[in-house]
Amino acid sequence: MEAFVGSVVDELEGMLAPGQVDVREAALRRYAVDQAPVIDFHLPLAVVFPQSVADVQAVVRSCAARGVAVVARGAGTGVSGGAHATRNCIVMSLERMDHILALNPDDETAVVEPGVVNAVLNEAAAVHGLMYAPDPASFRTSTIGGNVATNAGGLRCAKYGVTRDSVLALDVVLADGSLLHTGHQTFKGVAGYDLTGLFVGSEGTLGIVVGITVRLKYLPHEVHTVAAFYPDFRVAAAGVLAVGKARVQPAIMELLDGGTLAQLDDIHGSNLTARGGSLLLVQTDGFGAEAEAEVVRRVLRSGGAVVTAEANAEAERLVELRRHSRGAEVDDEYRVGEDVAVPRSRLVDYVGELENMAARHNVNLKVVAHAGDGNLHPTFWIERDGQGVDAGAMERLQRALDESITAALDMGGTITGEHGVGQYKLRWLGQEQPEPLRQLQRRIKDLFDPEGILNPGKAILP
Amino acid sequence: MEAFVGSVVDELEGMLAPGQVDVREAALRRYAVDQAPVIDFHLPLAVVFPQSVADVQAVVRSCAARGVAVVARGAGTGVSGGAHATRNCIVMSLERMDHILALNPDDETAVVEPGVVNAVLNEAAAVHGLMYAPDPASFRTSTIGGNVATNAGGLRCAKYGVTRDSVLALDVVLADGSLLHTGHQTFKGVAGYDLTGLFVGSEGTLGIVVGITVRLKYLPHEVHTVAAFYPDFRVAAAGVLAVGKARVQPAIMELLDGGTLAQLDDIHGSNLTARGGSLLLVQTDGFGAEAEAEVVRRVLRSGGAVVTAEANAEAERLVELRRHSRGAEVDDEYRVGEDVAVPRSRLVDYVGELENMAARHNVNLKVVAHAGDGNLHPTFWIERDGQGVDAGAMERLQRALDESITAALDMGGTITGEHGVGQYKLRWLGQEQPEPLRQLQRRIKDLFDPEGILNPGKAILP
Repeated sequence: MEAFVGSVVDELEGMLAPGQVDVREAALRRYAVDQAPVIDFHLPLAVVFPQSVADVQAVVRSCAARGVAVVARGAGTGVSGGAHATRNCIVMSLERMDHILALNPDDETAVVEPGVVNAVLNEAAAVHGLMYAPDPASFRTSTIGGNVATNAGGLRCAKYGVTRDSVLALDVVLADGSLLHTGHQTFKGVAGYDLTGLFVGSEGTLGIVVGITVRLKYLPHEVHTVAAFYPDFRVAAAGVLAVGKARVQPAIMELLDGGTLAQLDDIHGSNLTARGGSLLLVQTDGFGAEAEAEVVRRVLRSGGAVVTAEANAEAERLVELRRHSRGAEVDDEYRVGEDVAVPRSRLVDYVGELENMAARHNVNLKVVAHAGDGNLHPTFWIERDGQGVDAGAMERLQRALDESITAALDMGGTITGEHGVGQYKLRWLGQEQPEPLRQLQRRIKDLFDPEGILNPGKAILP
Repeated sequence: MEAFVGSVVDELEGMLAPGQVDVREAALRRYAVDQAPVIDFHLPLAVVFPQSVADVQAVVRSCAARGVAVVARGAGTGVSGGAHATRNCIVMSLERMDHILALNPDDETAVVEPGVVNAVLNEAAAVHGLMYAPDPASFRTSTIGGNVATNAGGLRCAKYGVTRDSVLALDVVLADGSLLHTGHQTFKGVAGYDLTGLFVGSEGTLGIVVGITVRLKYLPHEVHTVAAFYPDFRVAAAGVLAVGKARVQPAIMELLDGGTLAQLDDIHGSNLTARGGSLLLVQTDGFGAEAEAEVVRRVLRSGGAVVTAEANAEAERLVELRRHSRGAEVDDEYRVGEDVAVPRSRLVDYVGELENMAARHNVNLKVVAHAGDGNLHPTFWIERDGQGVDAGAMERLQRALDESITAALDMGGTITGEHGVGQYKLRWLGQEQPEPLRQLQRRIKDLFDPEGILNPGKAILP
């Protein structure tokens, strides 16, 4: 086995340029994990940095010939472990394939390499009055390739859709090293089966995305932001439904609970907790932004909110704070962030359930939600002191996590709205998907990757 | 063979209620075809009308056991032959499964049987200030199931997306008669591979859709319609780009050429041709509709349009006329409507090419376009007199059709934006999709339908 291992790294070093293959301990450690809790740690055999489609093809062919797994990754900002190294694998970082190959303002499309950072594409598009709509919280560092792998969401999805809705075509290196082009350069196209959609969200398990054609949307003419403080999280959640009932479609509708406000105050020295126990941030955009914001203010006030008369600039600062509400923390075994979604009508019930669970199991809770989508990110955690935590605390944390998933599913929800299953959420996937559906997905995986070398053990149940 | 055939119909008659199996000649003829040109006519063995998921399962199992094909259909309004009967088949009309099973105004979702007519769902949703966004020209008669099968588009797709963008979950009867549930009841969900997207647009070749969960959007607060007449089709096409450059996103942007205006005048007694050689209809909606319409008017006027000062009501009547611009005609071998899409920047070039082709081959041409999407419906035809047409005319028609496809592909376009490949467009599919992509699709078809009983010979190349 070691002889084989030696030979794949040797071959990669022979094929690629100096600096494209890294086997130093520090690099292996750094690229072994993404930002998810680690439950099965492995060091990769090497980290490779392809600079072209041909590089990716060569690496895949070399690994395929030896049964070595390939774990592709963008910036490693995922929080489900989709980019965690697996046993006997090469980690392929696509960060150096970071060119915007084309930006067509009249077509309102762009063609990018997978390593292009979301924010970089948005800056380039903004010059032409355009934007790339999906905006995960990691948009300043995460890559379009990684966003495609997880079908990433973000703040403005309720109005502008998720990654899948912005992807028109893909170039994909398959498990045998061949290059496939799917989709169309046009906004609409229905020739043949939708393989583009099948690759989006498949977390590198069906192929490695090496080129992406995206549709761009128009940068909004005008943006208005409303900050509504509530005494109570559940009443704030009810505000989300009230805006919906007024049939106003905000671009952003973010719900923050008291725990999140306290954390933001800690980090940024703000005084949010003094102003309320929960905050609903609503941003309207486009030519009707002002009129929509006026309706939103009226509706939220009549639901018990204190809607500040503050200027847009101040409310927008709150949206920026929200974008950073993950703080610097990375999840670990003591602190786990979730990504459930529930039908909108169940938001208030679900938020209440979460608070009850945290109290019942004596664990800490904070929640932020892309509330317009019914997509919630509760984080449960237990405090550590110098001695670590006792087994009882760990068990309480796990029970709260499991209950939060079960409650979401019972309400017609899903275990993951936008983060992906990766490795960490596999334990819950069977609760959402019955065996016939799991089997069909395994058969699709087998069709695309019969030897199982592409990111094995991720995204679907074995 | 006849014995087998007899037995499948006998078995179906035994399993289903009286009136659910029709073998009368008139019914077989009526259900043998959709609205596409017929190139390979077959009568089905029987037409069945399931009224439940269990009925669909029973029919599929019975057919599967005997190797009899199942061609599912909604209202039969397709124009690519996706619902044409094939050799030794049962046609399954889902028109009697027409119940709206749930309409959840707070969740902004609905669950429907496949035979629910698009307009009926929209009427039910409108009571709650909601709409089902995809609006193919056939929306008054076509079914949601049929819309899903073809991933139907429509007039307001540029702003609101195509069918795929509104479908959250599906119930599908597979080729072995088992029932699969895919997707999620929530707006967002990324657990496992996107099988929902794979079924949408697969034209009944991977499974039979028996239940659909859709996302509803908000009925617009306000609608403004702008009618812009131009002397010339190409200049009108340039107007589409000008609106895009102003970064206004209309709900509807329909382009009609002189041939279409003349036809509308013929049918409706209007005087459109007297007012211009081409018409661009732009509809803005939402809270910013008026401000957007004002920008549109300014931009189009400065591009040479005569923008009428007529009231909304009058312009909206033109949109209604446009919705009926297919007229009563059904395509046949002498008259073929196309469904190409090109990148937006190529609209003007492509429109010019079409006019040149029609002149070069001495065939008639009319064009309507969902211009915001770059999706064009040119119709080429030759006149018949009592004696029919000569072979030379038929050949000229075919040459014009082939050239219109090649020109679209050369510009980075697709052979079908929203109608589907069905049977009629198979002849061009190989020009768009290279063999490796075709092979992968065949392997997916084999995975879902190993015996090839589901709508064989459609959607993908053999």
